[in-house]
Amino acid sequence: MSQQVKQNILSELEQLPLIDPHTHINPHSAASTTLADIMGYHYYTELAHSAGLPKERIEEEGLAPKDKVGRLVEKLDDLDNTTQLSWLIEIAQEFFGFQDEKITPDNWENLYDTALAKMSEDDWEQQVLKQSKLDQVYLTNEFDDPLAGFDTQLYVPCLRTDDLVFHFTKSATRERLAKATGVEAGNAASLKEAIGKLFKHFTENNARACAISLPPTFSPQKVESTSIDPILKKVTDKSELSGTEANSLSCFIFWTLAEYCAEFKLPFDLMIGVNRRVYEEGVYQGQDLYDSRTSLYLYKELLNAFPTVTFPISVLAPTSNQELVSYSWIFPNVVTNGHWWYSNIPAHIELDCRARLQAVPQSKQIGYYSDMYKLEFALPKFSMYRRVLAKVLANDFVIDRGWSEERAINLGKTVLRGNVERIFGGC
Amino acid sequence: MSQQVKQNILSELEQLPLIDPHTHINPHSAASTTLADIMGYHYYTELAHSAGLPKERIEEEGLAPKDKVGRLVEKLDDLDNTTQLSWLIEIAQEFFGFQDEKITPDNWENLYDTALAKMSEDDWEQQVLKQSKLDQVYLTNEFDDPLAGFDTQLYVPCLRTDDLVFHFTKSATRERLAKATGVEAGNAASLKEAIGKLFKHFTENNARACAISLPPTFSPQKVESTSIDPILKKVTDKSELSGTEANSLSCFIFWTLAEYCAEFKLPFDLMIGVNRRVYEEGVYQGQDLYDSRTSLYLYKELLNAFPTVTFPISVLAPTSNQELVSYSWIFPNVVTNGHWWYSNIPAHIELDCRARLQAVPQSKQIGYYSDMYKLEFALPKFSMYRRVLAKVLANDFVIDRGWSEERAINLGKTVLRGNVERIFGGC
Amino acid sequence: MSQQVKQNILSELEQLPLIDPHTHINPHSAASTTLADIMGYHYYTELAHSAGLPKERIEEEGLAPKDKVGRLVEKLDDLDNTTQLSWLIEIAQEFFGFQDEKITPDNWENLYDTALAKMSEDDWEQQVLKQSKLDQVYLTNEFDDPLAGFDTQLYVPCLRTDDLVFHFTKSATRERLAKATGVEAGNAASLKEAIGKLFKHFTENNARACAISLPPTFSPQKVESTSIDPILKKVTDKSELSGTEANSLSCFIFWTLAEYCAEFKLPFDLMIGVNRRVYEEGVYQGQDLYDSRTSLYLYKELLNAFPTVTFPISVLAPTSNQELVSYSWIFPNVVTNGHWWYSNIPAHIELDCRARLQAVPQSKQIGYYSDMYKLEFALPKFSMYRRVLAKVLANDFVIDRGWSEERAINLGKTVLRGNVERIFGGC
Repeated sequence: MSQQVKQNILSELEQLPLIDPHTHINPHSAASTTLADIMGYHYYTELAHSAGLPKERIEEEGLAPKDKVGRLVEKLDDLDNTTQLSWLIEIAQEFFGFQDEKITPDNWENLYDTALAKMSEDDWEQQVLKQSKLDQVYLTNEFDDPLAGFDTQLYVPCLRTDDLVFHFTKSATRERLAKATGVEAGNAASLKEAIGKLFKHFTENNARACAISLPPTFSPQKVESTSIDPILKKVTDKSELSGTEANSLSCFIFWTLAEYCAEFKLPFDLMIGVNRRVYEEGVYQGQDLYDSRTSLYLYKELLNAFPTVTFPISVLAPTSNQELVSYSWIFPNVVTNGHWWYSNIPAHIELDCRARLQAVPQSKQIGYYSDMYKLEFALPKFSMYRRVLAKVLANDFVIDRGWSEERAINLGKTVLRGNVERIFGGC
Repeated sequence: MSQQVKQNILSELEQLPLIDPHTHINPHSAASTTLADIMGYHYYTELAHSAGLPKERIEEEGLAPKDKVGRLVEKLDDLDNTTQLSWLIEIAQEFFGFQDEKITPDNWENLYDTALAKMSEDDWEQQVLKQSKLDQVYLTNEFDDPLAGFDTQLYVPCLRTDDLVFHFTKSATRERLAKATGVEAGNAASLKEAIGKLFKHFTENNARACAISLPPTFSPQKVESTSIDPILKKVTDKSELSGTEANSLSCFIFWTLAEYCAEFKLPFDLMIGVNRRVYEEGVYQGQDLYDSRTSLYLYKELLNAFPTVTFPISVLAPTSNQELVSYSWIFPNVVTNGHWWYSNIPAHIELDCRARLQAVPQSKQIGYYSDMYKLEFALPKFSMYRRVLAKVLANDFVIDRGWSEERAINLGKTVLRGNVERIFGGC
Repeated sequence: MSQQVKQNILSELEQLPLIDPHTHINPHSAASTTLADIMGYHYYTELAHSAGLPKERIEEEGLAPKDKVGRLVEKLDDLDNTTQLSWLIEIAQEFFGFQDEKITPDNWENLYDTALAKMSEDDWEQQVLKQSKLDQVYLTNEFDDPLAGFDTQLYVPCLRTDDLVFHFTKSATRERLAKATGVEAGNAASLKEAIGKLFKHFTENNARACAISLPPTFSPQKVESTSIDPILKKVTDKSELSGTEANSLSCFIFWTLAEYCAEFKLPFDLMIGVNRRVYEEGVYQGQDLYDSRTSLYLYKELLNAFPTVTFPISVLAPTSNQELVSYSWIFPNVVTNGHWWYSNIPAHIELDCRARLQAVPQSKQIGYYSDMYKLEFALPKFSMYRRVLAKVLANDFVIDRGWSEERAINLGKTVLRGNVERIFGGC
């Protein structure tokens, strides 16, 4: 029975058009142009590298797209079991009519050529959006992005702020900020002014969120402007900051972002837990990991200080989901947000999704985002999530709690789409 | 097959009368008088607040019970998915003949009035006890509770000691202790004497356990009386203690409690992991959360020092269950105790219960307690637990290990009831 | 359907001969001689002790094997639910024709005598190997083991190094090293030389791995020889080392082991997370537990420094599995290794196995090892693992992902056997 109920729920959920509330899509080049754009996704390069393909083979300068794909194909058999590879197969099947169960040295060239022909069609991007039932795609924009030359109703800007908070001591960051805002941020007041201009620019261009990823040790604290001025003086003098000073500066900028989120009524997406460059010789974007010894308790001061700011929170370590459920259950301004990165496989999603659906108000859950770099990935990733969601709705709600299928489907629609509209301000 | 086996096991477990080994029942007012007593449970006020109902709407002074219920009902739809709400619906159905699947602005008044009529019957408390198959209900008594005016065979006292251990520096606590015992606890010796009097009073009144909840950073250590005397001198002089001094005093009092547990042969319930007042603007009892970075390793010295004291341990963070399983597997004096607070949803109970049933001696597991404040909650909470227990017994024991249903049912009865009698000293 | 698919997969996996890549078998006495060898396994003595059997009853000097078994049998009913006891029952059934479902005071003597008769047969060891389908059994050898007098193709040596890294300050350790190598390790250079001789001796005798268990706080760091010389001088002078000095020495020896693993092309098995002697009054081998607050992030420097060394990593706390999955997904030199000790029950194996099979390249997973001390335990332990593996393959791959049974079976064979051969260098 369970399988049939799940299938009924899934069929309904599959009809629902989607808003993808967090991606890394480049709106000027949203869809792929060759299969190398798809197989160059870090999930494949890092797994192939982890399985033994040398970094030099993958990232060789001037490597032609087709050659890159050919090299990666050699390692696909080692990855055959992975969920990540199943996304690739589903893309090949759904978009390019691929019929085999594996991509192999014998069949990949044909697939490559088929994909190339499809991707060369004028309306490929529109085809992908339509087939994937994507109404809107949220972006990740650098703070100095001009946000020009694309439809911000379709590709919705988000202000990404990692560089501001964690790399402000780099002169390149400060130069970008000055150029973007016309303000030289040499003290606390001018830094606040500059950041305010960013918020104005972004919200005038339909931005729906401010976002940042955070290391597991970070704990935001309010820092007074007066204690920041001498630190900024050292920064402009190119003196080295102590660890404490650097952390104070990060806290000050972070807190300023939260203040502007309150003022501009923007949700502040927190993606908590990543350590950058843990594997220093890893491939591009395949170097980051985490330390699961972190806690949302580190955000106590922030969550209390900004009751009017909604914080959609993603956690990297699946062990952190249990805290996320509890903090969302208590704090009105905490919302669960998707299944991020290393948590983004069915084994983790299922447990995390079950706990959320059982204990967090339904209005406070953003079910899923794709985190994709190329448009073709929304389809298999949302498919994966919907299958898990349908399974949990079938088992925990229809079978264990006696709900009607319709009631379960409505719950599914709320977390899959309804909340995205309501929390980020609609389309 | 799985569903049928589960149902057979569940039917048998449902026949078993219960002892509820940890509640917050007031024995002088055990059952509810209006639906506001039930919907005023912090699980509903905090979730409604989390979903957006302002604290002022919930805790307005002088608010009539019916008005309070009416305001909470406005937010129930947002909580419709939660397990916590399913308890409320089950109470409405089982005790008040409620027929709808949701409590809504349209039907709540009728339910309110029906409940009021039932609750006004003279024997309502007895009706609830009988329908819930409750033989005994353990209490949580303040250390200065006179324990008079109720049947301690039915409502079994437990000595709750948080105030002694963590708030002894407050003069109110010391005054309450002096008043309860006739001893001014101005040095280590008199403090020990006073606490001894509490144990005498409680055990003479059928107390079955000493209990305390503990923050995630606490690590009990033996502290010598000689180092406590000067600290107590500062306390009576109303000097501020340093963090180290305050911790030493907490450790000393905690250790003294353990010594008396040994002397009076009382189990010592440890509820590990709560941070108080994390969300300072939260509703009453809806302000506490946790930091999952804790470990039973912090209790190493205690568990070694008191081999004759049984420690029924509850953990708050579900990630701690795995340590609890291992420590109960090794330490003779550690017993697993229920599924506490944020762990008390099927998604967590199922995993925690599976690991315990697979790896901890069956004689060392206290399956469940309700933690309720009002008597009506035992029914839906134990129902929820029994359903999970029956599922685990069906899948892991009957199906996977080939046990007979009878054998699985006996295991279920042991953790659900038999161990409670044996470990706490029977009824 | 799920049950039938699982059964089909299981039947195929059960045909596969095994290599057991980590055990504590004594090759000079691999099989049991009485049931006391089996029931004396720490899993039973510690659980019986935990359930209330006094240590003195278990470890009484001069206790005859049959009497020891008789005493343990008294407590078996308390352990009836445990997975660990199910191994014992399966041994009794599979090797000794035991027909009952429990071992009781009434039937144990008959079982004891039957087992004694079988174990007394000349070829008992060969019978066990054959019935268990064991092709090879990897050992855990002290660093000064002569590795003589047994067939190293069947019983494959592994160099265990806990004493070198964590007990080098004990004179007994240094004397054993001097005796084994002919080198007095009084400074960094001679210590390196001595360790090099161990690697030469072990690899000449078919050793396939270096191995060590590690406390949760350990974080390997490169330490210069020059800073170690004065520390070693203090050691040979029998001066007490500070905590920092002792840690530096441990790091230096550990790092030296990793260097030789690179030179001799040996995998380095890391078993991460154990605290020794947490329960000081526990039975033999039943005193160790853990602190789940640990992270693979502590191994960042090591994993980056030795790209050519394969690190099969086992974690003790099930909460650490999620990091292990992520680190194996990124680092080419990290391989998941079995389900260690407190994680070795189906409730944990199932979740851990699912996450690994979904996210780690199939070529980087060593499914299981028995960790056994006596040969009879491979059969029930591998049976338990295979049942979980078959269940995960059936549900997650055949049913959820539409794989053929054959494809799923091949994945099972890869993690169960193929990778063991490839990663450790084959038979």
